[in-house]
Amino acid sequence: MRNILVIGAGRSASSLIKYLLEKSTPEKLHITVGDVSIAAAQKIINKHPNATAITLDVFNENDRKIAVQKADIVISMLPARFHIEVAKDCIALNKHMVTASYISKEMQALNEQAVKKGLVFMNEIGLDPGIDHMSAMQVIHRIKEKGGKMLLFESFTGGLIAPESDTNLWNYKFTWNPRNVVLAGQGGTAKFIQEGTYKYIPYQKLFRRTEILRIDGYGKFEGYANRDSLKYRSIYGLDNILTLYRGTIRKVGFSRAWNVFVQLGMTDDSYILENSENMSYRDFINSFLAYHPYDSVELKLRSYLKIDQDDLLWEKLVELDLFNSTKKVGLKDATPAQMLQKILMQSWSLEKDDKDMIVMQHKFGYELNGKKHQIESSMVVLGDDQTYTSMAKTVGLPVAIATIQILNGKIKTPGVQLPITPEVYTPILKELEEYGIIFKEKELPYKGYNPENVVG
Amino acid sequence: MRNILVIGAGRSASSLIKYLLEKSTPEKLHITVGDVSIAAAQKIINKHPNATAITLDVFNENDRKIAVQKADIVISMLPARFHIEVAKDCIALNKHMVTASYISKEMQALNEQAVKKGLVFMNEIGLDPGIDHMSAMQVIHRIKEKGGKMLLFESFTGGLIAPESDTNLWNYKFTWNPRNVVLAGQGGTAKFIQEGTYKYIPYQKLFRRTEILRIDGYGKFEGYANRDSLKYRSIYGLDNILTLYRGTIRKVGFSRAWNVFVQLGMTDDSYILENSENMSYRDFINSFLAYHPYDSVELKLRSYLKIDQDDLLWEKLVELDLFNSTKKVGLKDATPAQMLQKILMQSWSLEKDDKDMIVMQHKFGYELNGKKHQIESSMVVLGDDQTYTSMAKTVGLPVAIATIQILNGKIKTPGVQLPITPEVYTPILKELEEYGIIFKEKELPYKGYNPENVVG
Repeated sequence: MRNILVIGAGRSASSLIKYLLEKSTPEKLHITVGDVSIAAAQKIINKHPNATAITLDVFNENDRKIAVQKADIVISMLPARFHIEVAKDCIALNKHMVTASYISKEMQALNEQAVKKGLVFMNEIGLDPGIDHMSAMQVIHRIKEKGGKMLLFESFTGGLIAPESDTNLWNYKFTWNPRNVVLAGQGGTAKFIQEGTYKYIPYQKLFRRTEILRIDGYGKFEGYANRDSLKYRSIYGLDNILTLYRGTIRKVGFSRAWNVFVQLGMTDDSYILENSENMSYRDFINSFLAYHPYDSVELKLRSYLKIDQDDLLWEKLVELDLFNSTKKVGLKDATPAQMLQKILMQSWSLEKDDKDMIVMQHKFGYELNGKKHQIESSMVVLGDDQTYTSMAKTVGLPVAIATIQILNGKIKTPGVQLPITPEVYTPILKELEEYGIIFKEKELPYKGYNPENVVG
Repeated sequence: MRNILVIGAGRSASSLIKYLLEKSTPEKLHITVGDVSIAAAQKIINKHPNATAITLDVFNENDRKIAVQKADIVISMLPARFHIEVAKDCIALNKHMVTASYISKEMQALNEQAVKKGLVFMNEIGLDPGIDHMSAMQVIHRIKEKGGKMLLFESFTGGLIAPESDTNLWNYKFTWNPRNVVLAGQGGTAKFIQEGTYKYIPYQKLFRRTEILRIDGYGKFEGYANRDSLKYRSIYGLDNILTLYRGTIRKVGFSRAWNVFVQLGMTDDSYILENSENMSYRDFINSFLAYHPYDSVELKLRSYLKIDQDDLLWEKLVELDLFNSTKKVGLKDATPAQMLQKILMQSWSLEKDDKDMIVMQHKFGYELNGKKHQIESSMVVLGDDQTYTSMAKTVGLPVAIATIQILNGKIKTPGVQLPITPEVYTPILKELEEYGIIFKEKELPYKGYNPENVVG
């Protein structure tokens, strides 16, 4: 019997725990799920004979150490900032560890100790980061093994609503943390490289510099640039690449409409609005428009942002009921971003039967034997329901598969790492296909970075 | 003989010291000017018999204390962050103190001790803050004494180029710290109140929400909102005012053109551009525009920011030589803001005979005996030359006059304060008129805040 401790029984743990429970008998596993809410832990294991639910407050050092001691491997599904104490326990108590989070400085600092003790500390093995790393590296390694030289790598990911549940003009609903959606792009100027030239997009233009993607069977999408596309340049071995761009996927038209909020200042989370608790939706908009003795909020907004009378964007705003003068937002001492989030949650929350969708697309450009090639690799995953969402599947399954691979000694390179070696990604990507997480590849004529498809 | 210590012999000290030297014989003053550069101190006193130049490094505690000990009053013309150690010495050694800077938290914390010791710590007594406080409070007090109720207060200040030296399409040159001009507006969302409604303007719209001002004999100007117009609401006794707005003055059309830099991201000071040392002016612009295999930087920019073929704004960009592909900016590891500043300094630096100009305008709206009134009060000061600039005069003269008023016991209320009482502003504003610093008042029909003069 091998003991797995899963810390955190939240939304993202559903598919992870389902997989582990299914494998528990053939793989001889006992799964302990620890959460501050025992009810959440109990619900997720659903009285499975190979599982135990425990109350676990990760800040209670004693309880945490006891739980870690009993495990052979620990999975932390907590928010990233809570991993580090667990990780230190794993070092002290000689346990492997798996997370779906970005490697923090504190985590990286444990590398030497983990290597010395032969422990695998696998991170960034969810969706993004995770499946993006693995699926990209598999193709990049294949191109390099053939002797190809990488010229271009673009990678886009988005958490969206499934087509069958896509019922609003924004083609968007909150399938994940709404706050992150409202604050998206505010971490600093987006930076990337196109055909050898460094490019920078400030927040105020980020949502007007989208790129168009096409995914067979799902139509067109748009992507806006992530903050730092160059973060993985060296890690992926792409130091001399001409084009490197990472972006976030939305349905076409979303970003241009979102830009209205950006321009008005509604996504700002740095100050508190006066008298926010008494503001109607209409007051909220009006606080970002000039005073006028009698002109309407509607006309002031159209004029300010040059919104044509027949622009669909306008209907998107109307759909949110933004001009309602009686409906109050009802938040005390709120920032503009908090107000906007509350308004959007009225319109963009999931209905009972709504399903989510994860979309990922990579573009690889390379030169081989003097000829240029381009590969497009796309993945679409649909949620089953609101428990086994596509987000839960794509985040949780790679974590779960990696955990068993580590227990079985198939992934054995010790240290703090991310899934970019064939040892890690080959078996995981293969098994993910059984769960419908499949990349479809297309060979295309090389276009390089040529947004308008011009032949020039 | 009364001893005055002036710390800092920089550009802003010229008119201050000239005034003190002129008054030194009748007022029985000895002026000691301390600066890290003895040459600067010597130059500014020009061998005057009633003055001494000393080397003074404000971080040398011993030298600083010796210099403060010898004085009856200390004027600090250092950057604001350097005042506090001097201020603590003044408390310890029982000296009055004068600065033209905003009252910091640390300075405010000395209030109780200053009051106890009967010391006057006068701050914010330069131009802005300074003359703005005094000239506004004089009118506000007059209105209130008559029994009027304040409805509106708007206040605008700008440091500009004199009309005779106004030789470029931007109608602007650097008459003060260029870095502050490039970073203007980045401290946070602008906040003010118009007709009882709080209004917020984010940085990305700040330069497109200007107000138009008219000043007799000087034509039209524009103002963009300062960060926090409400900062002085209580201090001025305007708690229930309907409209309160403070802004920065530029010549008409400046802000709309400046917005090009804001939108592109060129004013960002938060990250370093790759390979900045090898960038031409053209490369610098192009790093904020999408890649294209052959379209020109010019057309990409026009299309991106929707600049019409015949828009004068375009000529403003051309005048800066922004599209030059051979001229290098020549800064290593520079932020966009640093690059932009260097480019602008090529075009906007003062010529030998250029003169500067300070413009200030207040608008006061009030109700008296059931009738509404409006007063416009405007000040224009021209520089004499590049030593006795209008900036040096308007910053230095109020400091100098206040210093002598304190020495003579005319300003005697102790504590950390700013010039908002008649005791302070009445004699100072009166004497400033002798130096051409004069406010002209006009009575107008009450318009309230009604930007387009509509009768609605």
